[in-house]
Amino acid sequence: MKLRMMQLVEQRQNQIIEKLCALNKKDAIKDTWKREGGGGGITGILPQGRVFESGGVNSSCVYGNCSQQLLNAMDLEEEAKTSDLQFFATGISLILHPHNPMVPTVHANYRYFELTRKNCDTPIHWWFGGGSDLTPSYLFEEDGQHFHLSLKKACDQTDTALYPKLKKECDDYFYLPHRKEHRGIGGIFSLKQKDRLPEQHFSWVRTCSKTFLPSYLPIVERRKELPFSEQEKRWQQLRRGRYVEFNLMYDLGTAFGLRSGGRTESIFVSLPPMVAWEYDRQPKTGSREEEMLSVLKHPKKWVA
Amino acid sequence: MKLRMMQLVEQRQNQIIEKLCALNKKDAIKDTWKREGGGGGITGILPQGRVFESGGVNSSCVYGNCSQQLLNAMDLEEEAKTSDLQFFATGISLILHPHNPMVPTVHANYRYFELTRKNCDTPIHWWFGGGSDLTPSYLFEEDGQHFHLSLKKACDQTDTALYPKLKKECDDYFYLPHRKEHRGIGGIFSLKQKDRLPEQHFSWVRTCSKTFLPSYLPIVERRKELPFSEQEKRWQQLRRGRYVEFNLMYDLGTAFGLRSGGRTESIFVSLPPMVAWEYDRQPKTGSREEEMLSVLKHPKKWVA
Repeated sequence: MKLRMMQLVEQRQNQIIEKLCALNKKDAIKDTWKREGGGGGITGILPQGRVFESGGVNSSCVYGNCSQQLLNAMDLEEEAKTSDLQFFATGISLILHPHNPMVPTVHANYRYFELTRKNCDTPIHWWFGGGSDLTPSYLFEEDGQHFHLSLKKACDQTDTALYPKLKKECDDYFYLPHRKEHRGIGGIFSLKQKDRLPEQHFSWVRTCSKTFLPSYLPIVERRKELPFSEQEKRWQQLRRGRYVEFNLMYDLGTAFGLRSGGRTESIFVSLPPMVAWEYDRQPKTGSREEEMLSVLKHPKKWVA
Repeated sequence: MKLRMMQLVEQRQNQIIEKLCALNKKDAIKDTWKREGGGGGITGILPQGRVFESGGVNSSCVYGNCSQQLLNAMDLEEEAKTSDLQFFATGISLILHPHNPMVPTVHANYRYFELTRKNCDTPIHWWFGGGSDLTPSYLFEEDGQHFHLSLKKACDQTDTALYPKLKKECDDYFYLPHRKEHRGIGGIFSLKQKDRLPEQHFSWVRTCSKTFLPSYLPIVERRKELPFSEQEKRWQQLRRGRYVEFNLMYDLGTAFGLRSGGRTESIFVSLPPMVAWEYDRQPKTGSREEEMLSVLKHPKKWVA
C-alpha cells in the first residue's frame, strides 16, 4: 500500500501541475527537499501567472522514528508511552489562490499514514485521510453545486453513504470558532478513514483525486474573465485573512507537517500571497458580501 | 490593587491615544464592549492616518468564573481540578503598524491577574505581566539602542537586575521555532512576575508603561519621512507575515484573550493591515534585508 500510494501521489501531482500550468501560462517551479530522519518531498510552486496569484501542488513521503510530540498530535496517547515506533506518511496537498475574487480558492489533500513497530511491517495503526474543499469570496450557487456534485459522484463509486458523512466532517473541520464562521463552502474531508478494507479506501483516494481537475477547472473557466472592482479585490484579501487564521490556528495538517519535521516553506505554500485585516468589517445589508457570509455561518446542502 | 491597576490602565490608554492621534492626524475610534460573564473593555482603534497604517490601544478588565480551559491555558493544572474559582484580569495592550517600512512596528502590554475562591478576596494566585518590544523591517542600531535603553532605565527604578532578566525572557518568548527567527529585536517581557511585593511590581508597570511614548516616538520622528521603495514596502509586508504567524501560533496573550471570552475583533487589532507571503524568499547577500534577518536569528545585546 505504501508503494502504491506513493506512486498515485506522484502521478496525480504531475497530472495536476501540467493542467494548471497550461491554464496559468506559466511554468511551475519544482523544489525537491529531504527530511532529516527519512524521506522528503517535491514542492511544486505555481508562480504568479494569468489565473493564479499563487499556488502549490506538493507531494511528500516522510518516515522514520515517531516522536512523542507527533504521537500526541495524532491523539495516540497510549502509543506515546512506548518507544521504538516508526511512522510513514505520504500525501498530495494542493492549494490555489486565484487573482480574480470571483474565482474561488481551492484546497485538496489526500494522504496515507502507517504506524509500525521497529523491524515489523504489519502496521499497528493505519488510515487514509483528506478531501477537497472550496473557499469562494463571492457565492455562485452553480459553482458550489458543480463542486459538491463532482465529489459526491466520486465518493458514490465507493459507497453512497460516504459523501453525506464526509460533507459533514468537512463542514465541522473547517470551522473558526472565534469567528463563528466556516472557512469556505466545504466539500469532503476525513481526518482518519480506517473503517473499510485498505483497498476500498485506496480506491476512494484514486477516484476523488482524479476528480479534482474536473471539479474545479469548469468553475475557473466560467469566472476567470469576470470584471471585478477594487472593493471586491479587497473583500477577497479580507477573506484570505480568515484562511490564514484557520491554517495557523486550527489546521491539524499544518501542525502535523511542522511537528513531523516537514519543510516550513513547503507547508506555508498554503498561505495566500496578499492578505488584509481590518477592524470589525461588517458587510452591508443585502450585499453580495453579506450573502457569502451567511452561507459561511450556516453551511448549506449542495446536492440532493 | 485591582482598582489601582484599572485606573492606571485607563489613564495610560488615554495618554497614549491622545499623543498618537496628534501624530497620526486622525482621531481614534473607541468601541466599548461587554463580556458575557463579567467585565469588558475599550478598544481604541487608530484608523489609517499620516503615520500609521493601522493600530490599536486597548484596555480590558474581565472577571468571573474561571473555566477549566482558561486554567489549563495558564498552566494551573492543580487548580483545574477544583471548581468555584474566580478570575480577574486587567491590562493595556497596544500595537502600531506604521506605513513607512523604516518605522518599526511596536507592541506593549501590561497586565495584572488574580485568581480567588468564590466569596474570598485574598487571591490564591496573582501576577503582573507583559512588557514592550520592537519589530523593525530595517535595522537602525540607534533606534534599537534608544528603545532598549529607555526600558532599561525604567526597569532600573525598581531593580537593576530586572532589565537583563526581562530582556532575555522577551527574546525567548517572541520566537518562531518553525522559522528559527525571533519576531523582532526584543525589549522586555515577563509572562508572570510575582517574586516581589505587589507594590513593587505595580511600580514597575507604572514606570514602564510611562516610558512607552518616550521610548518609541523619537524613533518615529527620525524615520517617518525617510524615502522607501516598492521593494522595501514589500519586505515590510513579508515581515508582517511573520508577525501574524507568531500571534496566531504562539502568542499566549491571544490564546488567553480568545479563551477568556474576550472580543475577537479587539484581540485581532494586533494583526497588520496588509500582509504578504512568498515562497522561500531569501534576501540577497550583503543587503539590508539580510542584515535585519541576521539580528532576528541572533538577538544582540543593545545596552551595556
